Amino acid sequence: MEKEFLEILRTLSQTVFVLSADNEKERHAMTVSSVASLSLDPPSVMVGVNKEASINNVLQKGSNFCLNLLKNSQRKIADTCSGVEEGEERFKNDPWISSNPVFLKEAQSNIFCKVVEIIPFSTHSIVVGEVFKLNHSGKIEPLIYQNGNYV
Amino acid sequence: MEKEFLEILRTLSQTVFVLSADNEKERHAMTVSSVASLSLDPPSVMVGVNKEASINNVLQKGSNFCLNLLKNSQRKIADTCSGVEEGEERFKNDPWISSNPVFLKEAQSNIFCKVVEIIPFSTHSIVVGEVFKLNHSGKIEPLIYQNGNYV
Repeated sequence: MEKEFLEILRTLSQTVFVLSADNEKERHAMTVSSVASLSLDPPSVMVGVNKEASINNVLQKGSNFCLNLLKNSQRKIADTCSGVEEGEERFKNDPWISSNPVFLKEAQSNIFCKVVEIIPFSTHSIVVGEVFKLNHSGKIEPLIYQNGNYV
Repeated sequence: MEKEFLEILRTLSQTVFVLSADNEKERHAMTVSSVASLSLDPPSVMVGVNKEASINNVLQKGSNFCLNLLKNSQRKIADTCSGVEEGEERFKNDPWISSNPVFLKEAQSNIFCKVVEIIPFSTHSIVVGEVFKLNHSGKIEPLIYQNGNYV
């Protein structure tokens, strides 16, 4: 059933985000597709994060993260943050700003959140974030992934 | 901030699902966009559901639901299930099958789930479902919503 489930997931049109977070010792960025809005009051999101992902080292209740919504021109960043590079190497070539949390300056939008809940489920954690700040370029040209390719 | 959050959400490319569920007394179908895959082991999903939605009457731990992934030709069903019609009226004109759970026969795919967790968060519930059956048409022509329109 896992194979058929993956086949169905491949048919979805998915806007590509890079999840970024840091603490005093390390920073991480990871391309994610398991993202959904949750409530408008307060503005909040939920993100599925694999428990084995290194970004889990820095995600905890009360810490900050950013969902960087990529522009169509940023597919290289999506690749970099989904396995081509590891750890600190992922930050080398792009305009990341070390803030709390670290974020990608030239994303289409940045959704800055504070972790309010982390709910473990099997291999993953559901990370619930409450939005505390937004950057929005006003552009509508998100990077979209479908059927194994960027669209 | 709510307004800017909504503006950012509008820029996302969102595959349109209708969430359907029933019990012995009533059945409900509601167009949703707050859907994300969670784990592959077991295949599972998370759905954000407004606590005031009537489908909440029939969603509980251990009950079944279906995520019906709409085809591009089914935008009328998306409209019907997002407010044009209410309650039982939503089932009148389309090939819904009364099973457990009720599902849309001619969707691109059906993802049948059992509710394993319901986590309340503010106005919404995070409904975690474990997949127990899949129908997949093999087609890749999902209904997609972006910037206030079907694409």
